[in-house]
Amino acid sequence: MPEPKIQLLLTGNEIMSGDTVDSNSAVIGQRLAELDLTIYRKVTVGDDIDLLQAELADMSQNADLVIINGGLGPTVDDLTAEVLAAVAGVPITEHPQAIAHLQDWCGKRRLPLNAANLKQAQLPEGCTIIDNPSGSAVGFALKLNDCQVICTPGVPSELKAMLDQIVDQLSQQLHRSTSTTILRLQTFGLGESNAQQLIADYIPNWPADVDLGFRAGAPQMEIKLTTRSEEALQASQHCLAQIHELFGDHIIGEGNSQLAVRVLELLQQRGQTLTVAESCTGGLIASMLTRVPGASDSFKAGFVTYSNHMKETLLGVNRELLAEQGAVSEEVVVQMAAGALARAEADYAVAVSGIAGPDGGTPEKPVGTVWMAWGDKHQLQTRRLRWPFGRAMFQTMTAASCLDMIRRTLLGIETEPRYFSQRRA
Amino acid sequence: MPEPKIQLLLTGNEIMSGDTVDSNSAVIGQRLAELDLTIYRKVTVGDDIDLLQAELADMSQNADLVIINGGLGPTVDDLTAEVLAAVAGVPITEHPQAIAHLQDWCGKRRLPLNAANLKQAQLPEGCTIIDNPSGSAVGFALKLNDCQVICTPGVPSELKAMLDQIVDQLSQQLHRSTSTTILRLQTFGLGESNAQQLIADYIPNWPADVDLGFRAGAPQMEIKLTTRSEEALQASQHCLAQIHELFGDHIIGEGNSQLAVRVLELLQQRGQTLTVAESCTGGLIASMLTRVPGASDSFKAGFVTYSNHMKETLLGVNRELLAEQGAVSEEVVVQMAAGALARAEADYAVAVSGIAGPDGGTPEKPVGTVWMAWGDKHQLQTRRLRWPFGRAMFQTMTAASCLDMIRRTLLGIETEPRYFSQRRA
Repeated sequence: MPEPKIQLLLTGNEIMSGDTVDSNSAVIGQRLAELDLTIYRKVTVGDDIDLLQAELADMSQNADLVIINGGLGPTVDDLTAEVLAAVAGVPITEHPQAIAHLQDWCGKRRLPLNAANLKQAQLPEGCTIIDNPSGSAVGFALKLNDCQVICTPGVPSELKAMLDQIVDQLSQQLHRSTSTTILRLQTFGLGESNAQQLIADYIPNWPADVDLGFRAGAPQMEIKLTTRSEEALQASQHCLAQIHELFGDHIIGEGNSQLAVRVLELLQQRGQTLTVAESCTGGLIASMLTRVPGASDSFKAGFVTYSNHMKETLLGVNRELLAEQGAVSEEVVVQMAAGALARAEADYAVAVSGIAGPDGGTPEKPVGTVWMAWGDKHQLQTRRLRWPFGRAMFQTMTAASCLDMIRRTLLGIETEPRYFSQRRA
Repeated sequence: MPEPKIQLLLTGNEIMSGDTVDSNSAVIGQRLAELDLTIYRKVTVGDDIDLLQAELADMSQNADLVIINGGLGPTVDDLTAEVLAAVAGVPITEHPQAIAHLQDWCGKRRLPLNAANLKQAQLPEGCTIIDNPSGSAVGFALKLNDCQVICTPGVPSELKAMLDQIVDQLSQQLHRSTSTTILRLQTFGLGESNAQQLIADYIPNWPADVDLGFRAGAPQMEIKLTTRSEEALQASQHCLAQIHELFGDHIIGEGNSQLAVRVLELLQQRGQTLTVAESCTGGLIASMLTRVPGASDSFKAGFVTYSNHMKETLLGVNRELLAEQGAVSEEVVVQMAAGALARAEADYAVAVSGIAGPDGGTPEKPVGTVWMAWGDKHQLQTRRLRWPFGRAMFQTMTAASCLDMIRRTLLGIETEPRYFSQRRA
């Protein structure tokens, strides 16, 4: 059968004003992707009956399936049932199955079934009900000529519960077996335009049936290959292998791999531990690591030594050295790393000291300058970089590059990452 | 002049697939609300040139202003310039001002200006440029008959920087004297429905010309009062005073006040310092503090003592105590705080130990249980709470409540916050 055309109609004044960020349509998109179904168009309007009717009438002419989200609640600005009935040209009637659901729902919560609730059982004649396991508003579906319209609740938890049923039903009804395959790679240290250019140069005959996408989410960038047939999958896997060859050790992993997760995995495989000595990142590296469940296996302690005096008393950095070289210097980060290794009794350490800004820069050490040291008790390596970003992004990229250097050390990677030359200070 | 009709056109395959949640349109909606402008319709489609052209052509017939978001990047799926040129019937040309911006941008970052970047200077003939202070892609604007079209970048930080200019310009051009006034309050420790109910009970005659809004952004919640006339402003200020009375010390501050910023301000005013001893939050409290510029004035050091052994060696927590009471206990957090105070030579400390999950809970200390200790060398207070959240939200709410207790201590607030009774463990 041909690809069904799917549109999404969202309603809610709070989405238009920006008081609420719409995450529902992303959830619906992801669930439909499981069936290799794509929403090709999405329209959002406020709670206005004329606008909603016009959009729905138009959509039903140009889609095989329309999913409406929002407007199922008990208040006067919840208009979905009324809109659908008007466009279908059918009356609104009290739906016994919806009444039974409301009685059950209110009964369990020992709430009276009031007039506002009862409005949620006033539905377009002839519609079928979709159960709402976690809320008072049932969903409902109705055919508008050849277009199926499914109405879903705006409360995210209720939507999620209802989508399980909708996806199951669509799967049967449309005979979808999922031929779509998405391959993902997580990278660090490649700019988006840079990566795109390198792929264009290196893989000039990119296959037409493999969609290439990039998602730059600081600090990592995701590369995504989408295919929609069995035949294309082989081409996609070949592309993936070529991208692996091209970007090599800039690839953190496939799927949803994250730097901190990868570092902790590698440590756990060896039964080894890591400590961090942070100045300019101020606890961010430790926080990235400890956000991962099970971090305690490989991370026992971290030091946030923000002042010179604390670098001296907590990590044993030499006082004269701090006075002579300043806190942002090679020898200081080496002593910070060595001090942390000894005090935390850890196998690996990374230490970092830099100028996050907006103040504190000098001509020799401008804002964005950072010294890193990493390694074990036998060998510490160092590097000076400069990130041309504001304070928050400087901290994010510095913390990520520290984790990246530990990852590279654990994997025995000796070549330098691209960002070492791009961000050389 | 009549109310301008505004539509929003969003482009991006990653929004359609659900890989990315669109927060940009909420940001645009909020900024336009400052000028009392409302978006009445929003359409989202993938990176498809035919769909985009059809939508833009249709929109320009039914709007005075269309804002396009996304599709300005350097890659082949960035189509906005091409689409706008096609609908306007003008050629694409290299724009000297955009070239100059790209040269400057790449120069500062010592990156080569490659072909992918140069694509970002290929713009519709006759368009005007909007500067992008934080990215390579300039914005641009063009008239389509009577409809003004403004093209903005999809990268959220770049969009935000550009919106300042766009809002200023629209304000002048549309002669919007901003009779709209928005008063904001930042709170911590009040649930949204709870806060709404309390306001309804306490201020039953809420004035009709003052819009009340809530924005729950973990960990803080914003309360927002919007008025659209000089007369209403006075009523709004009266409401604000009543809300201050109602929520009292749960209010962090007006405007955009943040917990960590507020704590650092209070410390700086007194020339005092704070240290943190973190177990379950793993560096997050230190990171929240050091994300604030100038944090180094009042924050000198933090300790991330994740293991029992490190609590003992780095903070001097008694070994027998750890064995008997376990790390998540009142006496352990007291010793952690005392140890941190002494070692960091700080005026105030907060210490925290808890079970972030998903594993590690017991019947006596289920996942989500946390002990906090805070105060100075003369007096440390303690509290056991339980947050019924997943790991990341547990860490966020725990870190915020630690900062909140320091804020309350510095302000001499002795009454307990509401969440102490709500989250009693």
